[in-house]
Amino acid sequence: MEIIGEKINTTRKAVEAAVRQRDAAFIQDLARRQAEAGAAFLDVNSGLPLDPEEEAADFEWLVPLIQEAADIPLCLDTAHPKVIEAGLRRHKGRAMINSVNGDPAVLESILPLAGRHHCKVIALTTSREKKIPAGSAERLEIAKAIARRAQDHGVPLEDIYFDPLVLSLATDQKNALVFLETLKAIKQELPGARTVSGLSNISFGLPRRKLLNQAFLVLAGFAGMDAAIADPTDKALMAMVTASEALANKDAYCAGYLRAFREGRLDM
Amino acid sequence: MEIIGEKINTTRKAVEAAVRQRDAAFIQDLARRQAEAGAAFLDVNSGLPLDPEEEAADFEWLVPLIQEAADIPLCLDTAHPKVIEAGLRRHKGRAMINSVNGDPAVLESILPLAGRHHCKVIALTTSREKKIPAGSAERLEIAKAIARRAQDHGVPLEDIYFDPLVLSLATDQKNALVFLETLKAIKQELPGARTVSGLSNISFGLPRRKLLNQAFLVLAGFAGMDAAIADPTDKALMAMVTASEALANKDAYCAGYLRAFREGRLDM
Repeated sequence: MEIIGEKINTTRKAVEAAVRQRDAAFIQDLARRQAEAGAAFLDVNSGLPLDPEEEAADFEWLVPLIQEAADIPLCLDTAHPKVIEAGLRRHKGRAMINSVNGDPAVLESILPLAGRHHCKVIALTTSREKKIPAGSAERLEIAKAIARRAQDHGVPLEDIYFDPLVLSLATDQKNALVFLETLKAIKQELPGARTVSGLSNISFGLPRRKLLNQAFLVLAGFAGMDAAIADPTDKALMAMVTASEALANKDAYCAGYLRAFREGRLDM
Repeated sequence: MEIIGEKINTTRKAVEAAVRQRDAAFIQDLARRQAEAGAAFLDVNSGLPLDPEEEAADFEWLVPLIQEAADIPLCLDTAHPKVIEAGLRRHKGRAMINSVNGDPAVLESILPLAGRHHCKVIALTTSREKKIPAGSAERLEIAKAIARRAQDHGVPLEDIYFDPLVLSLATDQKNALVFLETLKAIKQELPGARTVSGLSNISFGLPRRKLLNQAFLVLAGFAGMDAAIADPTDKALMAMVTASEALANKDAYCAGYLRAFREGRLDM
């Protein structure tokens, strides 16, 4: 499972302060620690405060700064095409865009960019109204519609990471089942497509969130989820990812599990 | 998920010593702690040393002693019908027998006892040769054959706990998949039947066994496993059981999860 490191996000107060003050050392340290812990991508979000001009300037500063510290691709996490473009101008290699959704206006503004720059794309299975459909069938339909438009814009299925979307168990106890059902349906109906999730919504409003998040990650990984937006420096969570891949027969001879053990990554 | 507490077993040196010395306080403490931690049954195994006469005498001492400390049914874990009978003579309520398997000689000696005493039975899906078939289809056939003979002896399907049997990932990385496939096949083909596992074989020969066992328990619980032979005083494992049931929509309004949190049972 590919981990998209979630920590460089200005909704976190310390990160917001660092971005506002252009504290390069703080940001590079966050980048380095996530990459060393095994992140395949680093999410970059400076959407707070809500001024796209400022956000674009942040990205122009952040993108090369982060890649100087961590030589991995970034996941440009913004609602604004201009901010994505600002990030892409400074990005080395193939970036990931976070995110599109089923809204045609969003698709038509972001997919051309993705196609032109050969980006990977996270696609939320929400409708035009930004609502999350309750059932998996509607979410699958949105995924299919996104896949069609993406193809028109030269973004192949294997570059799209569909997010089946997870809502909290606290609002409906079927939410984990709906998520896993949607994930499996996407993998079956859109072969080659990737899947991704932020996971932690599952436990929103409940105590001991890490416990639920870990158990949910095991289930999602076993169901074939390809990537997770998560904290790669959370050792317990990452250990569960490793265990889940061994159990799912995705780790020949348990080699990855044994290597993680030798490197001390299974200690909790 | 029902937990069958595994700790009263003479393969553990301290337990063997306590049984040999008739140390009632030690045994009753083990019984009480497992029951307080949420065990639904307590396994009782004194198969070491290998003398059935001595084992029967042990059971006559152990069964009332344990039930005096913990008012729950016991799981009589022995290969010998005479030992089971010795245990049943002193047992209050409906006992569980651990175990039968696909060997006709075993079935014909133990199922009549189970029918007569209205016992629950753990049924291993091994063949007459005590071999574990590699695939789920053969294990399912054995389960069906056991179910038929059990019915003849008046043991209904809902009193049989089939063990799909788990082998270590270290010997074949498909072993978790085969287990889960067998579990689902048994639940589908023998509706009403229960399923059970000892789980920990999954990690035999690998490091950080508790991590793999926890992740495997989440998967097995989600797949519908009804019971586990495990250590109910292992808080991390039990917390995973609770999380797994919430995720599997088996815990209305997350009431069990929230109660476990309030009672401190989710702290690790």
